[in-house]
Amino acid sequence: MKVFTEKHDNLIFQYPIDTVHIEHQSKMQFIGIYENASVGRFLVIDDCIMLTELDEFVYHEMMAHIPLLHHPKPESVLVVGGGDGGLAREILKYPSIASLVLCEIDEDVTKLSRRYLPTLASGFDDKRVTLKFADGIDYIRHAASASFDMIFVDSTDPDGLAEPLFSGDFYAACAAALKDDGIFVCQSESPWYDRELLMGIQDRISQGFPNRKTYWGSVPTYPLGSWTWTIAGRRHLPKLPEALDAYKNFHPPGLKYVNSGILASCFELPQFYMQKLAEET
Amino acid sequence: MKVFTEKHDNLIFQYPIDTVHIEHQSKMQFIGIYENASVGRFLVIDDCIMLTELDEFVYHEMMAHIPLLHHPKPESVLVVGGGDGGLAREILKYPSIASLVLCEIDEDVTKLSRRYLPTLASGFDDKRVTLKFADGIDYIRHAASASFDMIFVDSTDPDGLAEPLFSGDFYAACAAALKDDGIFVCQSESPWYDRELLMGIQDRISQGFPNRKTYWGSVPTYPLGSWTWTIAGRRHLPKLPEALDAYKNFHPPGLKYVNSGILASCFELPQFYMQKLAEET
Repeated sequence: MKVFTEKHDNLIFQYPIDTVHIEHQSKMQFIGIYENASVGRFLVIDDCIMLTELDEFVYHEMMAHIPLLHHPKPESVLVVGGGDGGLAREILKYPSIASLVLCEIDEDVTKLSRRYLPTLASGFDDKRVTLKFADGIDYIRHAASASFDMIFVDSTDPDGLAEPLFSGDFYAACAAALKDDGIFVCQSESPWYDRELLMGIQDRISQGFPNRKTYWGSVPTYPLGSWTWTIAGRRHLPKLPEALDAYKNFHPPGLKYVNSGILASCFELPQFYMQKLAEET
Repeated sequence: MKVFTEKHDNLIFQYPIDTVHIEHQSKMQFIGIYENASVGRFLVIDDCIMLTELDEFVYHEMMAHIPLLHHPKPESVLVVGGGDGGLAREILKYPSIASLVLCEIDEDVTKLSRRYLPTLASGFDDKRVTLKFADGIDYIRHAASASFDMIFVDSTDPDGLAEPLFSGDFYAACAAALKDDGIFVCQSESPWYDRELLMGIQDRISQGFPNRKTYWGSVPTYPLGSWTWTIAGRRHLPKLPEALDAYKNFHPPGLKYVNSGILASCFELPQFYMQKLAEET
């Protein structure tokens, strides 16, 4: 039986494959979509699992709803990356959203997601969505200033193709493209990863944003089983009580991970991780 | 290179082994202690990793401190299982503890932990500790009623040797052995496991205890990366504000996972897991 193998440091994770849906070399990267009896369909880019049907809801709900609930009225949003569509699906649950630009560098990710991951790609045909197949760095540099309420950076890891999406210059450009009360969010890796990697990301976010807060959740199919996201404010960071109020007034439909308790608690970080982040100063 | 392989459903986790410290067949089970460059030393019983030096602190801190901080004055405690010593090490941080009975079914686990996992076994020589190498079921049936302030069940999974430690009869016997304001806690598996398994555990705890609450944390080396524990009250369950007050007055030394934020937030469960547990009623 064919097996997909992901390595992380000296650990090896194997997913026996029941079905190979597609294996494709795009202009930029290898894309595979497979099926495993425990995790369902899963998307691989180069050597890493990007998402599985088992737990993609955690990553996408946490990345979308925690920041969205912190914004008083999100209307115009930009997603950099996220070509599978899962994040857009969650963002589009907010009736206040008038425009979502999704800037994905590799059109083939979106094409294959439409075909093999329809529950993720379901939002692409929403009339509020504009798809741009372009480099997020270029896109953000040429974006009009103060044009977005929110920017979501749904990228791969900070090596290879996505590395520039973790640079201080990129974060500063994102800040410039946000309105005054705008909110930025990016995935910020596993709390269990090396201090140097994690501190580096946080330090560079600081080059663009004066205020930031990191939150976390359980994502079984990412190495070491937990993941973090970092939310940052263009000028200030709206407060959690406001987000809890927003959730009381509007429950995004169909949530499987986020609820008021998770919203209230996801910024409470384990001691070892707080210590890693604190040592940057 | 030798590799330790753990399977969970259709997922395979592999740990390349740098050093085999010991492989031993006890009267009851296979015990292995190995070394891997990412997780450090790790203890295997039969086919499953019990703990690793990387993240044992999460399991043991969460299992010890969350319930201990809920008890007004824990003096007399029983640990069923936990023969590696990590849980005892955490419990013994409380000066109020006068007596800790550790009832481990397999003396060889403790012998090998003393030899190869000294940072876990460090508490065994504390004069407050009594080691009993006996079946926890027998021990609890013959325990005097109302003899313990707290009972901790630090067991393997509910198949094989540990299965009786997940029975309604056992939970009822634990309740009888607790004082009126006594607190019980057990590991209650991964929130990602099947509903039937998880509901079964919770239903059976209800046969012994009128009140219970489940909490969770990030344990990378358990399958699917998160774990839960369930705390239950002999008569009533002390409230979280009391536990937060207790933590203000006494910080157990050397904590790497638990802090006031984790204590305050660990009972906030993801929506999918709350739904699994709710469906039992």
